[in-house]
Amino acid sequence: MPDPPRPPELADQPIVLTWPVQWGDQDAFGHVNNVVYFRWMESARIEYFRQAGIGNAAAQQGTGPILASVKCDFRRQLMYPDTLLISASVTSLGRTSMKMAHRIYSASQKAVAAEGDSTLVLFDYDAQRPVAVSDEIRARLASIEGRSLPASK
Amino acid sequence: MPDPPRPPELADQPIVLTWPVQWGDQDAFGHVNNVVYFRWMESARIEYFRQAGIGNAAAQQGTGPILASVKCDFRRQLMYPDTLLISASVTSLGRTSMKMAHRIYSASQKAVAAEGDSTLVLFDYDAQRPVAVSDEIRARLASIEGRSLPASK
Amino acid sequence: MPDPPRPPELADQPIVLTWPVQWGDQDAFGHVNNVVYFRWMESARIEYFRQAGIGNAAAQQGTGPILASVKCDFRRQLMYPDTLLISASVTSLGRTSMKMAHRIYSASQKAVAAEGDSTLVLFDYDAQRPVAVSDEIRARLASIEGRSLPASK
Amino acid sequence: MPDPPRPPELADQPIVLTWPVQWGDQDAFGHVNNVVYFRWMESARIEYFRQAGIGNAAAQQGTGPILASVKCDFRRQLMYPDTLLISASVTSLGRTSMKMAHRIYSASQKAVAAEGDSTLVLFDYDAQRPVAVSDEIRARLASIEGRSLPASK
Repeated sequence: MPDPPRPPELADQPIVLTWPVQWGDQDAFGHVNNVVYFRWMESARIEYFRQAGIGNAAAQQGTGPILASVKCDFRRQLMYPDTLLISASVTSLGRTSMKMAHRIYSASQKAVAAEGDSTLVLFDYDAQRPVAVSDEIRARLASIEGRSLPASK
Repeated sequence: MPDPPRPPELADQPIVLTWPVQWGDQDAFGHVNNVVYFRWMESARIEYFRQAGIGNAAAQQGTGPILASVKCDFRRQLMYPDTLLISASVTSLGRTSMKMAHRIYSASQKAVAAEGDSTLVLFDYDAQRPVAVSDEIRARLASIEGRSLPASK
Repeated sequence: MPDPPRPPELADQPIVLTWPVQWGDQDAFGHVNNVVYFRWMESARIEYFRQAGIGNAAAQQGTGPILASVKCDFRRQLMYPDTLLISASVTSLGRTSMKMAHRIYSASQKAVAAEGDSTLVLFDYDAQRPVAVSDEIRARLASIEGRSLPASK
Repeated sequence: MPDPPRPPELADQPIVLTWPVQWGDQDAFGHVNNVVYFRWMESARIEYFRQAGIGNAAAQQGTGPILASVKCDFRRQLMYPDTLLISASVTSLGRTSMKMAHRIYSASQKAVAAEGDSTLVLFDYDAQRPVAVSDEIRARLASIEGRSLPASK
């Protein structure tokens, strides 16, 4: 299918995935189960990191982002079938961490169905400790966002 | 297996599930994937609602709790094999909503591995709108918690 | 993204979904976990039934297909990122049942990564028993397949 | 909770896991979704391999079992809440492969709810090719099964 046009609600989002709702994403309430939203936000984060060239540390080796916290506010129920737009943007940077925002937009409802926030820490899986976000990574993130990023509070 | 003893970190939690980590809960980083924590917190919420006699509305019929927001702070990585204690408590009540807190305790690490918060709205799936938490439900929740519950801010 | 062209390996398949591999579909072995293939085959079956107008019985009410058996032969490991083509076809019909075949094709590997078979029974969820496949449904399935369907052995 | 007593239907099964049904294992039909059965059988296989001392190759390194084929026959619908007994046994051995059988028993229904078969290949993830099952592994498997294992057909 062709990608749906990007709506104004996502105009400021640098990374947007187009994603189908699966029938099996629904639970016994007949709507998409809450855990699926976190899988979707993860997919948008991973795509963001891929584009930023941030190491996708596999199997506890090397350095990569680790999730420290994630939240989702559910605005609307989602059902199969539907096509979603799932976004990720970096909103602020700390010494070893970054904050991201996510939106999940329903093409059938023409509305944002959920909003999320996540905090990631750049993590050395060998040493099992956080590492500083380098100037090179800061520059790449600013380039993707099209602005210099504020410091995390 | 016998249930592990309840640690002091969960002493104030009325509902505690004992739960095995599955090998397949792990992702390509070799630790339990973030979405699994939300499935665990859901299981503790559902058990809480079952004990509270709050209707488990199925398939968009009748009245039951709907998840409005959920957050998880990840403190420690979890791996297979491990046995977890997963808790739920109601911390405050609104007119149509309730706030819950969750802790996920690792028996092998003898530490709280994650903490969560969720906001539930009592929802009429037929009318598709929130309904007030009745005095009867308020009394049942206070009985489970062993205290009168403060109003949600 | 545009749909990849349909390869000769799927030329005889009436229903073909285009599907992204999610990072989180991978397990601690670093490849897509086996259970995900069954979710994909389910999605192709559901789409087939939707096009065939076979009732998608929800929540144990009404009549719809129920899965009696499913098998998957894994030919190649799949990794993120990749785009898949996932097919479903009905291969034979019994009095109350139908057999389906599935193929999962990797666009990046240009090869069939897995093949599956499933047996579905048309089920009356209210009465909790199988019901006969009507002549009307048989005609719709034959129309989708472009041939009259043999009897299941 | 205490483990349920082992029923006669599982008397010949060397590895049996006790497992809770999660509410979220259910789909929009209101019963446990088919993919969950494969996650359960995987958990029983992994526990079997752990007891057999067969390397749990992580992240495509070293040698470990890889799933070549798996099938599940669904006998009964499962719902939350329930406690399951999930078994694994090795039924035959090939040069580089082994066949396993699985049963999923419902404590609430006092019946086998599903039966499965899987074929595993011992795989060198570095070289990406099958390796022969050693005499040492054959002896360990025979010890767990309490009999010498027939050759796979």
